[in-house]
Order: sequence, then C-alpha cells, then structure tokens
Amino acid sequence: MIRFCDDYSEGCHEEILKLLQKTSRTQSDTYGLDSYTKHSEDRIRELIKSDSAVHFLIGGTQANLILISSVLRPYQAVLSADTGHIAVHETGAIEGTGHKVISIPSCNGKIRPDQVLEAFHKHYSDPTAEHMPQPAMLYISHPTEVGTLYSLEELKALYQLCHEFHAVLYVDGARLGCALTSPYTDITLEDLGRYTDAFTIGGTKMGAMFGEAMVINQPSLNHDFRYMIKHHGGLLAKGRLLGIQFEALLNNNLYFELGKHANNMAFQLAKGIQSAGYSFRYPVQSNQIFPIFPAPLLESMRDQFVWSSDTPMEDGMICIRLCTSWATPQENVDLFLSNVKKQKD
Amino acid sequence: MIRFCDDYSEGCHEEILKLLQKTSRTQSDTYGLDSYTKHSEDRIRELIKSDSAVHFLIGGTQANLILISSVLRPYQAVLSADTGHIAVHETGAIEGTGHKVISIPSCNGKIRPDQVLEAFHKHYSDPTAEHMPQPAMLYISHPTEVGTLYSLEELKALYQLCHEFHAVLYVDGARLGCALTSPYTDITLEDLGRYTDAFTIGGTKMGAMFGEAMVINQPSLNHDFRYMIKHHGGLLAKGRLLGIQFEALLNNNLYFELGKHANNMAFQLAKGIQSAGYSFRYPVQSNQIFPIFPAPLLESMRDQFVWSSDTPMEDGMICIRLCTSWATPQENVDLFLSNVKKQKD
Amino acid sequence: MIRFCDDYSEGCHEEILKLLQKTSRTQSDTYGLDSYTKHSEDRIRELIKSDSAVHFLIGGTQANLILISSVLRPYQAVLSADTGHIAVHETGAIEGTGHKVISIPSCNGKIRPDQVLEAFHKHYSDPTAEHMPQPAMLYISHPTEVGTLYSLEELKALYQLCHEFHAVLYVDGARLGCALTSPYTDITLEDLGRYTDAFTIGGTKMGAMFGEAMVINQPSLNHDFRYMIKHHGGLLAKGRLLGIQFEALLNNNLYFELGKHANNMAFQLAKGIQSAGYSFRYPVQSNQIFPIFPAPLLESMRDQFVWSSDTPMEDGMICIRLCTSWATPQENVDLFLSNVKKQKD
Amino acid sequence: MIRFCDDYSEGCHEEILKLLQKTSRTQSDTYGLDSYTKHSEDRIRELIKSDSAVHFLIGGTQANLILISSVLRPYQAVLSADTGHIAVHETGAIEGTGHKVISIPSCNGKIRPDQVLEAFHKHYSDPTAEHMPQPAMLYISHPTEVGTLYSLEELKALYQLCHEFHAVLYVDGARLGCALTSPYTDITLEDLGRYTDAFTIGGTKMGAMFGEAMVINQPSLNHDFRYMIKHHGGLLAKGRLLGIQFEALLNNNLYFELGKHANNMAFQLAKGIQSAGYSFRYPVQSNQIFPIFPAPLLESMRDQFVWSSDTPMEDGMICIRLCTSWATPQENVDLFLSNVKKQKD
Repeated sequence: MIRFCDDYSEGCHEEILKLLQKTSRTQSDTYGLDSYTKHSEDRIRELIKSDSAVHFLIGGTQANLILISSVLRPYQAVLSADTGHIAVHETGAIEGTGHKVISIPSCNGKIRPDQVLEAFHKHYSDPTAEHMPQPAMLYISHPTEVGTLYSLEELKALYQLCHEFHAVLYVDGARLGCALTSPYTDITLEDLGRYTDAFTIGGTKMGAMFGEAMVINQPSLNHDFRYMIKHHGGLLAKGRLLGIQFEALLNNNLYFELGKHANNMAFQLAKGIQSAGYSFRYPVQSNQIFPIFPAPLLESMRDQFVWSSDTPMEDGMICIRLCTSWATPQENVDLFLSNVKKQKD
Repeated sequence: MIRFCDDYSEGCHEEILKLLQKTSRTQSDTYGLDSYTKHSEDRIRELIKSDSAVHFLIGGTQANLILISSVLRPYQAVLSADTGHIAVHETGAIEGTGHKVISIPSCNGKIRPDQVLEAFHKHYSDPTAEHMPQPAMLYISHPTEVGTLYSLEELKALYQLCHEFHAVLYVDGARLGCALTSPYTDITLEDLGRYTDAFTIGGTKMGAMFGEAMVINQPSLNHDFRYMIKHHGGLLAKGRLLGIQFEALLNNNLYFELGKHANNMAFQLAKGIQSAGYSFRYPVQSNQIFPIFPAPLLESMRDQFVWSSDTPMEDGMICIRLCTSWATPQENVDLFLSNVKKQKD
Repeated sequence: MIRFCDDYSEGCHEEILKLLQKTSRTQSDTYGLDSYTKHSEDRIRELIKSDSAVHFLIGGTQANLILISSVLRPYQAVLSADTGHIAVHETGAIEGTGHKVISIPSCNGKIRPDQVLEAFHKHYSDPTAEHMPQPAMLYISHPTEVGTLYSLEELKALYQLCHEFHAVLYVDGARLGCALTSPYTDITLEDLGRYTDAFTIGGTKMGAMFGEAMVINQPSLNHDFRYMIKHHGGLLAKGRLLGIQFEALLNNNLYFELGKHANNMAFQLAKGIQSAGYSFRYPVQSNQIFPIFPAPLLESMRDQFVWSSDTPMEDGMICIRLCTSWATPQENVDLFLSNVKKQKD
Repeated sequence: MIRFCDDYSEGCHEEILKLLQKTSRTQSDTYGLDSYTKHSEDRIRELIKSDSAVHFLIGGTQANLILISSVLRPYQAVLSADTGHIAVHETGAIEGTGHKVISIPSCNGKIRPDQVLEAFHKHYSDPTAEHMPQPAMLYISHPTEVGTLYSLEELKALYQLCHEFHAVLYVDGARLGCALTSPYTDITLEDLGRYTDAFTIGGTKMGAMFGEAMVINQPSLNHDFRYMIKHHGGLLAKGRLLGIQFEALLNNNLYFELGKHANNMAFQLAKGIQSAGYSFRYPVQSNQIFPIFPAPLLESMRDQFVWSSDTPMEDGMICIRLCTSWATPQENVDLFLSNVKKQKD
C-alpha cells in the first residue's frame, strides 16, 4: 500500500539518524540544557534574525497546549478557525487545560481579519462580557489544515488586531517548511519572528522523528516557560535528541529542501489530476491537496493507495485529501497519476 | 567530565539505532497502530504471561500524569512516598490534572503497608471525610528514588490493602530493568502483572532514546485510554518509534542485560567505596547509590566527575548520589574508585 | 426604572423570609445534613414519584459545572445548543473543569434529536475518533434560553438517543416552574424523573434568594456527589438555608403558583404587543418573550423600562428580550403595554 | 443537644433578616452591581482606610480557590500550614484548580517566617528548581484553624519575605471578627490592608447566612477578578444578598460585637475548664478552644453536648475542640461548665 494519507508515515531523514549515531555514546547535559540544543536554538535565532526564545517540544498537540495554557489566564479563550487543529483534532487538549476554543467559521481553512475583529468587538462591546470567556489569543496554522497559506498582508493585519485588543497571535507551523518554500505566500521566517508573538517550526511532519521548535518572540511570554513544559510532562530527559534533530534539519538548508520536495510532489499530483479534468475543493498551495473524484475511480484505487478524509460532494463525487511528504518518491506520484488517467480513458 | 549524575546522559543503545535505520523509509500506520508497536505489545504480554493492555508513552512524568488522571475522579487523591517522583520532581504535574498527592513519610524511599492502612483508615473513619480528598490510588516506584527495592511480600500486602479500600496500586518502573535484575528483590515481571493494577517498564533510563511501556492489568482502567493519551498531547505521531525501540530492547534479553550492567557498575562502586571505609545513607540495591564522603574528598574530585544531590550530614560529611547506567564504561568506575582510594591514602 | 430584564432583580418571596426567620436561632446540623434539607429532599422525591437523589446547590453555573464534571471523564465533551447557557454565559466554567462544550446550531433555542444523532454518528463513525473529544452528555435547558419548551415526545427521543450512545441526558431547569405551568408543553415533573439522567429544579429565578435542586435519577451518577460539591467549593456551610427555601417554595404549591404568575405576566405582555401589531422572534411559551419593535418606540421607553438583548433585525426593527418573574406586578405590565399602544397611535 | 462543634449551626443575626425583609421587593441590578453591594464595598474600604478592591463571595472554600487560582500561574504552588484549611478540609479544591499546596509543619496552627524563608530558599537554590512547583504564594489563616493568632510583627515579617521572593501573602479571615476583637493580637483591620496582598473578612462564621468579603490590596491581583468569580460559578445572581448582609454586619459595629461575644463565651469556657484543673492543647486566643479532658467526663456529657475533633492524648486523656459563636447563649456555657465541675467533684 502506498500512503498519501499523512506526512509522518516514515521514520526520519537519514541525516538525522547519522547525527544521532555519531553522538550516541557522548555524555551531555540533560533536559535540553546540552550544547546540541543550544546550538540549534542559536541557529534558529540566526535564521529568524531575532533574539527570540526557542524551546524544543516533542509534538504538536503538546506544543499547542503548553503555549496556550501558559499565555491565557483561567477565564480566557483562544480564537481558532473551526477547522483548526486545536478545535478539532486534539481530543479537547486545550479545554483540558481549562480554556475554551472559540471557533470561527473558516473559508479555505483561513480566518479573515474582519472575523477576528468581530469576535473581539462582540466580546468587549457586551455589557455582560464578564459572563463570557474573554478572547485573548488567536491561533492560526500556516499552512492551514487544508494546505492553504496566509499572505504577509493578512498576517500583519491579524497581528495588529490582536495587539489592539491585548491578545496574542500564535502560529502553528507544523508544516512550516512547506509554507516557507511555497510560491503561494510571501511570508518569510523573519516575518514570523516579527509579526507573531509565538510560532512553531514543525519537525515531525517535515522529516524529523519528532519535535517542534517553539519560538517565542514576546519576552514576557517566555517567563518560566521551562516550568510550564515540565508541568505538562513535556521536558524530554534526553532533550539533546531534539537539539540534534534540528541541527541535522537546519544544516545545509535540509529543512527547506524537504519542504520543497513535499510541495513539488503535491504540485505534480495536482497538475496531473487537473489535466485529467478534475477539480479541487481548496486552492492547491502546499503539500496537502483536496481533489474531487468520481466514486468509482476511488474504488478502483483503494487497494493500492491510502488517502484520508473521504467527503461526499454533489453529483456523487467525493473529495479526498492527498498528503505528500519529504519522503514521497517520484514513482508513487507517477503511479497515482497513471491510475487516475487510466480510469479517465 | 565523567557523569555519574543520571542514567540518561547518553543517546541510546546501538541496537535501537540499527533497527530505526533499517525501518526508516518503510511506511507504516501512525499513532501507535503500526505493526512494530503491536509486536512489542505482544512481546511484553508474553513476558508478563498475561493479557494486560500495553501502551507506549514518551516519558515518565507524562506516563504518571496520564495514568493517574485517568484512574482518579476529580475529588480523589493519590498516596505517595514523600520522596516519590510525583510528589517532588514533576513540577506539580499531577496537581495540574486536578489531584492532590498525599505524601507519606518514607523510610529508605519506601512506604510500609501499615502506613498505607493508616492513611485509608484516617480518611474513611472521619465523619467529615467528604471535606477531604479521597485516597483512591497508591503510587510506588520500584526501584525507589533512592535505589531501594520492595519485596514480593511487601508488594502483595500493598496490593491487597489497596483493593480492600477500592484503591488502585500503580508502580512506576522507570528503572525496572535494574529492579528485575537485582539480587535484592524477589519481584518478577510476572508478579507485576499479577499484583499491581498498572505499572511501567521504563525505557528512557534503560538505554532507549525515550519511552515507557504502560502496562494496565485491570481491564476497566484501560477503557478509552488512547483518548486519555491524546487528550494530554502524548500520542506520538510516529508511534512506531516507541514500538521499534522496545522491540530492540526486548530482543535477546537486551533490556535485562542493560539493567544488570548498570547494577554491576553501581555495586562495584559501592564495594570499592565501602572498602575505602565509607558508608551509605541508603541500602545499596540497584544503580543509584548514596555514599557519604568527607567534603574535601568531594572537592578534589569535582573537576573530573559530576554527581548530584549533595546533602550535608553530621560531622562535615556529605552524602551524594551516584547513578550508573547501561552505558557506564568500566574505566569510569575504576577511575572514580582510584580517586577515592588515592584521597584515602 | 421598571426592570423586565431578568427574573432575579428582587430579593425573594415572603414565605421564604418567614421560614428563615422562624428557624433562625435553632441549631441544626451543617453542610446540608440538617432535617430541613432532608425534608425538602423527600418532598421533591414525593413530587417526582421516584427515589432519585437530591442535592441543593447555590447557583446555576455551579450546578452545571459540578454535575457535568462529575459525569464526564477527562477526554469527554458535552453537547449543547449554541445558545445554551453553558455554551455562552458561564465564562468558560465547563471548559474550566477540562471539558469541551460542543455547540449544535439551535432552532428556537432547541436542538432536534436528528442533530444529536448526527453528532454521535459523526464521532463514532470516524476512524480517528480518538483524536476528538468524545460526546458523552447532552445538555438542554427547559425552558430554553429563549423561553421555548420541549415536548414530551422530544424529551423521550433525546433520552433514548443518549442511552443508545452511552451518553447522559441532563436538563437545566433554572426556570422549571415556568415550564411546568406552561400550556405549551406536556412534560411533567414525573417525566423529568423518568426521561432524564439528571435535572435541576431552579430556585434563584423562581422566587428563592438562591438555590437549585439537583435531581439525579441515575444512581451511578450520584456516587460520591457530595465530595464533588465540596471539591468545587459548593457545599454551603449553612446548608439548611437551601433546605428551608425549598421547603417554603414547595409548600402549598407555591413554586408552581410563582411560575404560573411569571408566565401569565409574559403572556399578557405578548397578547398586548401582538394586538398592537408587533411580532415575535421566537414562539411565546414561558416568561421570556422576544418582541420586535421599531427603534423609535424603544427609544421612547428607555427612560422608564429596562430590558435586554437589543438585536437589530431587518428594516430598522429591533428585537428585545422581556423577562417577567414571580414578582412582576400587574401595573408594570399595564404600564408597558400602554406605552406600546400610545406610540402605536 | 447543645452544639459547640462549629460557629455556623444557626441561621443568621436578626439585623440581617430585617434588612433583607425591608429590601425584598425592591428591584436592583444583579450580579453584585447593585447599590447595596457598592455601599458595603465602600464601607469596608472606609474601615481599612485604603482603596483596596472588595468582592463578596459566597463561601470560604470558594473564596480560597478563586483567589489562589487567579494569582498563581499553572506551575506555581501555595505554601500553607499543614493544618491550614486549604491543606486539609477543602476536598482538594486548590489542587482541583491545578496547584499544589505545599504543607509546612505548623506550631500551634501557625507558621514562622524562618520556615517560609527556608521553603523559598530550598526552591530557588535548587539547580533543578524547574522540576518542582514554584512557591509563589503564602496562605495563612487568622485566627488559625486552632484558634491562635498572629502578631503584627509576625505578619509584617511574612509579608516582607513574600515580597522578597515575588510571592503573594493571602490571609484567610473566615473568623476575622474574632481575631480583631481578641486581646491576644495587635493586628488591626488597617494592618491587613497594609501588610497583605489579599485577605477575607468572613461572614458565614460571624453571623451572616453566608458570605466572605475578599479584599484585594494589590491592584494587579484585581485585574478581571469578576471574570474569575464567574468562571468558577461564584457570581451570585442576586448579588445584593451579599451586599445587604455585610451592610447589616458593618452597621453600628455589629460585626465586632458578634466577634467579641463569641470570644467571650470561649474565654468563659476556658476559664471554667482551667479552674476545674484541666489544660489546653493550644493557647486560648479566640472562639475555638482545645481542652483536654478525661474520657469518662466526655462520655458523661455526650448525650447533651456536641463537640468535634476527639483526639486521644497521653494517659487516656482526650483533646476536644469547643467552638463558640455569635449566637452562643450564656446558659449553654454555664451548663457546660457546671457539667465539667460536677464530674470533677
């Protein structure tokens, strides 16, 4: 079976294993206080051109719940697109830390500044505001859950709005490598250092075994952050593993090469699918694409390929999600497309 | 610097890296539903000779907080030795899930059945019991935080007591490999499957990169446990990493060999220290030992060795903690002992 | 200023003060273990004709958060109409106990059985259900937040559905006296004892100083419930105050008389408003009504009356909420209507 | 039966009922925004001679959990005497909000500044401090759980220490009226406004039906505090009930008269008991006293009196707790003493 259902079906990139092997018997400090980790922290600051704080966390849900529960006071809530990972796919992890996730209807996985403005207005103009959770944070993902991307203008507008209402802008960059190498956005890593309060540079879905770099641009949000990590069971004893993985990823542009590869595989798929006459539910902008196929075509391919999110559309068509990755081989893409075309003929 | 301050200063055992490398480009199911993980789950059940449920978690604090918060209702508390990891070294992670850790004064890191009986009695005989957190779980570690071990008789007594009071017995086995291969306890892996409700088989401190196997013997406690893991951000996307690591550790008795090695290194240290005329704060039973040295001796060694937990004792003596591991080389032990003896002479 | 903005602007009914005065210097047991409270518990069981458990709590938000957090396991969620009190007006109190409130779009403040079925289906048919909070409870209010009422047939259908999916049905009866005396529903108190797992009989909005009776029909949900109350700071030291208030309310049908009065005042308002040619946003069924007026009419009355929830509608009309209560005097209703009619002329 | 087991066995003082009756049919704003409440807030500020913020809460456990969880960040803990109410008698309410209560061994219910200093030192001097909950608050009660009182010098020392370590000093004044009128302390109400960050003026145990005034001296701690109250279900719909009760209590010095009465009743008991030859476990300083009696004497009185906390002492003696109140009649004291003396003879 060929998996196009996620970007974490493989182990990790070889450069990571190589560096792990090379360093394995060397003793180091623990819990992320080692020199490998410090090196990777510095490297990230260098790339962002800022003196932001950097922490390495194990996974995305954990990163989200630690950051969000660190920022918010007990009665505060976080705004999210209704398709956002924290709103849908974290088994109530954010609520588990005591905070409401206020869902905003999304368009192509994104939320517009005017929607955010309305949410703030609705709260602060209500004379009984105290009876409602206070929106004090905006969570967006870039790329979004449906592979779309924000523009720099949008990012700046959201950032400015948040600050106007004393709220924090946090960007979940689980697939940031794909965003940063996509032609469909002008947001750079430096921009994320400048126009967000915190963001993550995802490793898990970008070729690492696991790991997300949490970058905290606003110094006050970094206060005692390591206590927060430990409090939630997220301080890895052998923290070096995170530092080493990011060292390997950030060497020789590897992180960006992997992102570019995942995008290219997706763009090839999209081009082939389109030229076979099929359309897409969402704009194709990174490594997740959502083609709409006739049910019989999908049936014919189900014994060879795995994808996700079958969603019935009009006229018996079905939208699916195809996800490519740093590890997707060219032949898998070719095979998928030849199947699509064969059926078409 | 030679580190005797913990058992997680190195990367991981070579067999693990080898298996990770071998499998790295193979696609698999995710979130622990892959065949590597299933294989390791089966292997553990085989070793315990039971049909217990097995889940692989990333770290010890996370394992503790997920299990404890899954078992307890909101008003319930967990009993622990005052030296227990959950009582001291988890930054309030258990309280973070809403539950009080009730500390019981420990003797050599252990708590006696009569102390546990008293705690239950104290609660249930109080007419205002509803005004106090209800003790519904007992947490012990084996080996304890000071390296000591429970006997099978003690384990059985605690298990029976817990069940008498409708409480759950949970054993933290972060260093279980050292316990199971120590001559100072008669508790076997099968006993843990029989006389506990849940226990962990620690990987992080036993040669893995990270990972704890959570074994749940009582079926009712396993209900929806994967939801609990995800709720706390502990479901590793590439769950196979845990399955693969435990596969390597459980192959050819490796896990037990590594435990035995760590113990032997500690026992050699202890023997040399004793023959040099020094005594110990706690019985020497596994890979953590607590010798008491004169301050000047320690000063003379501080530029070459790292240890932890300097505790002033009577007469200017200082108790320290030395921790050996699966990776401790013989020469480090020899060097430490030669230093001790040199100073003595 | 005449207040039509809520049903808790006054102190409490005279019968309550009389009974408080009569008993004030008598000593009693505390924390709700007194004989007044036991008497009121029995009285409620008598009225419901069941042996349900009864607990008296101080307020509605507290009642909701204690019951819901007692029923749900950490990863579970409660379904609610998007207009439900727990979804909108409790400052994230339910999320504060760790649980997501899953909003269902409401029609006239109610949710239909098919919507609930869909929510359960959506969850349990998803292969990645573990990544989403598990819906394990349905919260409805009767009357709803917009004054509407469920029918017995609807209640039975929701109850059956919940049990099919191992979920709990909980009815918030903050204004239950108005529901039970309204001609627009056939649900009786006995029905609530039979077709819900738990429900409240509201006092605060029905003439008490404060207090909600929590009736728990399913015995397993009552286990250790008093611990839960204390854990959330809800066990009133002088618990007798709750027992005494409900004793007064349940004497001589007072509770029902007060509900009937509140309804009648609202129905008179509605009739007069309708005959003046204005319509309503929601069906008029209990003591909260939502007439739609021209803005100038409202402006002319704003210096004499207080109402709430001004909502702009089409054509410059504004919908407001008028709330009557056990204490609304006839002359206030007459005065309001004469103002409406005067403007009309 | 005559109850000496608590100070909340009666209803409330007549002045309160009178004022409730007088105001009962008057309409007012809700949720504590009414003029009665504002008046009482002002009155308290006047008495403290400060511009502190004042909020009225329903009960003591609720007041503690709301204040503490408002002040602390998720990884922070509160220090308390091991006999403190939050450490023993709140069913884990503080832990329920996510925070560890760090117990400090008490002497006569009090903790000394040197103990607090040690606790702070222990944390901040530990190189692995991040692995432990951070002590960021000190909770004391005045009077303590055993009726003893702090001196102004002690209060000042604790306050200074807390501020040195960026921690908050919070004083639980559930029985503050007894403290302020006892000859055994020089702490005044003004001192509490000056040398604490927050404190409560208890009503429930001082003659009110219920209610605690939370006084917040440090402005930053008051930020959005009403959101916190609502978030925990503590915002009383008819908030005026609290304002009115405190108005009655603070009129004509009533609050202080009631405290003085409770103390006097206890002091009379103590004097009589002492003159009968019995001693006390703790210094007699307010309305809770702890005489030590022979078991047979207690047996002979058990059918007439109720007390609490029977604690076996040496030589078959038993220590009990006697609690007087604002409502204790002189004849109850006389009767108790005559019984004690009769037995003695």
